[in-house]
Amino acid sequence: MARVHNFNAGPAGLPLPALERAQRELLDFEGTGMSIMEHSHRGKAFEAVHNEAISLLRQLLGLSDDYHVLFMQGGAAMQFAVVPMNLLPPGRSADYILTGGWSEKALEEAKRVGTVRVAGSTAVDKRYTRIPHQGELSLDPNAAYVHMTTNNTLFGTQWHWLPDTGDVPLVADMSSDILWRKMDISRFALVYAGAQKNIGPSGITVVLARKDLVDSARKDIPVIFRYATYAANNSLYNTPPTFAIYLMRNVLAYTLEIGGLEEVERRNRKKGELLYETIDAHPDVFRAPVEKESRSFMNVVFRLASEEMEKRFVAEAAKEGMVGLAGHRSTGGIRVSIYNAVPVASVERLTAFMRDFAKRG
Amino acid sequence: MARVHNFNAGPAGLPLPALERAQRELLDFEGTGMSIMEHSHRGKAFEAVHNEAISLLRQLLGLSDDYHVLFMQGGAAMQFAVVPMNLLPPGRSADYILTGGWSEKALEEAKRVGTVRVAGSTAVDKRYTRIPHQGELSLDPNAAYVHMTTNNTLFGTQWHWLPDTGDVPLVADMSSDILWRKMDISRFALVYAGAQKNIGPSGITVVLARKDLVDSARKDIPVIFRYATYAANNSLYNTPPTFAIYLMRNVLAYTLEIGGLEEVERRNRKKGELLYETIDAHPDVFRAPVEKESRSFMNVVFRLASEEMEKRFVAEAAKEGMVGLAGHRSTGGIRVSIYNAVPVASVERLTAFMRDFAKRG
Ligand SMILES: Cc1ncc(COP(=O)(O)O)c(C=O)c1O
Ligand SMILES: Cc1ncc(COP(=O)(O)O)c(C=O)c1O
Ligand SMILES: [Mg+2]
Ligand SMILES: [Mg+2]
Ligand SMILES: [Mg+2]
Ligand SMILES: [Mg+2]
Repeated sequence: MARVHNFNAGPAGLPLPALERAQRELLDFEGTGMSIMEHSHRGKAFEAVHNEAISLLRQLLGLSDDYHVLFMQGGAAMQFAVVPMNLLPPGRSADYILTGGWSEKALEEAKRVGTVRVAGSTAVDKRYTRIPHQGELSLDPNAAYVHMTTNNTLFGTQWHWLPDTGDVPLVADMSSDILWRKMDISRFALVYAGAQKNIGPSGITVVLARKDLVDSARKDIPVIFRYATYAANNSLYNTPPTFAIYLMRNVLAYTLEIGGLEEVERRNRKKGELLYETIDAHPDVFRAPVEKESRSFMNVVFRLASEEMEKRFVAEAAKEGMVGLAGHRSTGGIRVSIYNAVPVASVERLTAFMRDFAKRG
Repeated sequence: MARVHNFNAGPAGLPLPALERAQRELLDFEGTGMSIMEHSHRGKAFEAVHNEAISLLRQLLGLSDDYHVLFMQGGAAMQFAVVPMNLLPPGRSADYILTGGWSEKALEEAKRVGTVRVAGSTAVDKRYTRIPHQGELSLDPNAAYVHMTTNNTLFGTQWHWLPDTGDVPLVADMSSDILWRKMDISRFALVYAGAQKNIGPSGITVVLARKDLVDSARKDIPVIFRYATYAANNSLYNTPPTFAIYLMRNVLAYTLEIGGLEEVERRNRKKGELLYETIDAHPDVFRAPVEKESRSFMNVVFRLASEEMEKRFVAEAAKEGMVGLAGHRSTGGIRVSIYNAVPVASVERLTAFMRDFAKRG
């Protein structure tokens, strides 16, 4: 079958050239007579891939030497626990800003580790349709850190500004918009992201951590959960998920090849604009619940007149090779995830379908 | 290049048919128009693979319904912490039997979680050349559990009997010999293993856990570390490492195809016997430090007269397409890892080389 238009929320579509490269050398990596999966994580062949993935991340982001690039396992949900285990000592408290289901989960998990506070929330009836303003936040100047979720995968909202937290370290879950455009990482003390939306397959989690924060992190937790362990061992303390790192390397190399994050941003803005324009042009058929200034360029969420109509929309789109459009099971509606690897052409195809669907009513 | 003879200690070689299957369908999984990596972990296509991997493990092992099969991330080294986090409540103590470097690491990590005891150790000058006898163990009848390592990857020893722990749950790190032959898992309360030696690529950890143990495990730890979370959600609480699970499925399906664990054991015994016979036939050149009844059928360890000679052995073998023979950086010497995927023919090739090397002196 021809490749479909993949709007999955994560694991998501990957750039075809990154997959083709993997396919080509799956049985024989660079003439070594084995798959990259069969190489030792302590051998030269894998270590070169590993280090290239790290330096590509540094280069694409323009990351300063004040930061470690760490590779971990366990997904972003494991970071919900690992962040407070490292950064929240007894007697301190951490601030959480709630903007969606994932920030709620991060808060709930942190509660099992230490003392937390809600420093702001835009929930109305358990739904989130906007990002808060600075004036709505009540930040604790003594907090160990402030936690935020830069893009809210379920509700389709995204921060287009960053909160001022003064001297308090800002920690961000960037799982669903890391590398969606150039970002000033120096605004954050720590960033974490599961790779499976914008930069790779599932099974690998990227952590960008300011070195001083890692140095002063808690040492009374198991070694395997300490950021310092990964920092001291170039993320090779134990066996890493070698193939996931390899494939992420392929994705990052391809990202650089097409022009880096400037080009990525241009494409992502184009895709988002196409979709929101189409939604706004048919207010009788499509309704976007999210306030305009909080709209996400990664997950575009909208509703139709009824759940029945939404089901029909998803089914008819699937027939035409567009998959992954059903909203999250907890929210319903339609969700179009347009991560970095989704081609502009796929969104053009979808918006054409939407216009036609609207016409037919 | 032709595929090499891969004696890597882990990540290790994989069965060629399992890799070829992955290569064939890497861009289009079963006519769905996407890679298995691009499928949602909540979609039908992936869930079928996931459930097949679980049932293949059940079938190959003849596992009873009293056990959960859980898939986790983080490697075996994460289980060093997760086991005591779940199974070692405050006020209790756990027994550790030391038979190598990995059991030492498991002990050290458990110390950071709770109270532990060494219930036996065969270390002499920090080296291990044998498995203890029952009479050498001093087991605490009130221990929360007893921890053992069934195969000692670094030192090349393997348990060929199991300790009697009475009513105390027996927990085993089976990372380097899981599925090397049929085993009676009912002797264990919990088994864990990183997949990257016998059953798949790195990035996926298998846990076999008795249901009653999971039910009574600690609930005052983060959700992401509770075995109960994985048990309640079919290991889909958060995004699993989908490609690693898929590839493990391919390996397990191939294992069944060639005749299951009876055939696997036949091949593994053959490989081990070939190697030990060759070593024993040339006592002037090769010296196996491990006592005969403790010899491992997964990692065959031996020394040559000098480090220089060992270097020459490794270098000459590499020239003839045999790789991965250098011992672990902490032990030195030669280590031949002959996990399930290593063909008998590769060992025949190696033993011919050894005989020739011995002749040349
Ligand atoms: C913003 C955000 N955080 C966390 C997660 C959880 O990630 P994982 O499944 O890798 O644990 C997701 C997954 O969709 C997400 O979108
Ligand atoms: C017996 C044993 N336990 C644990 C480990 C550590 O596994 P991982 O690197 O997956 O954490 C290894 C790795 O070689 C091993 O052989
Ligand atoms: Mg999701
Ligand atoms: Mg959310
Ligand atoms: Mg090892
Ligand atoms: Mg060992």
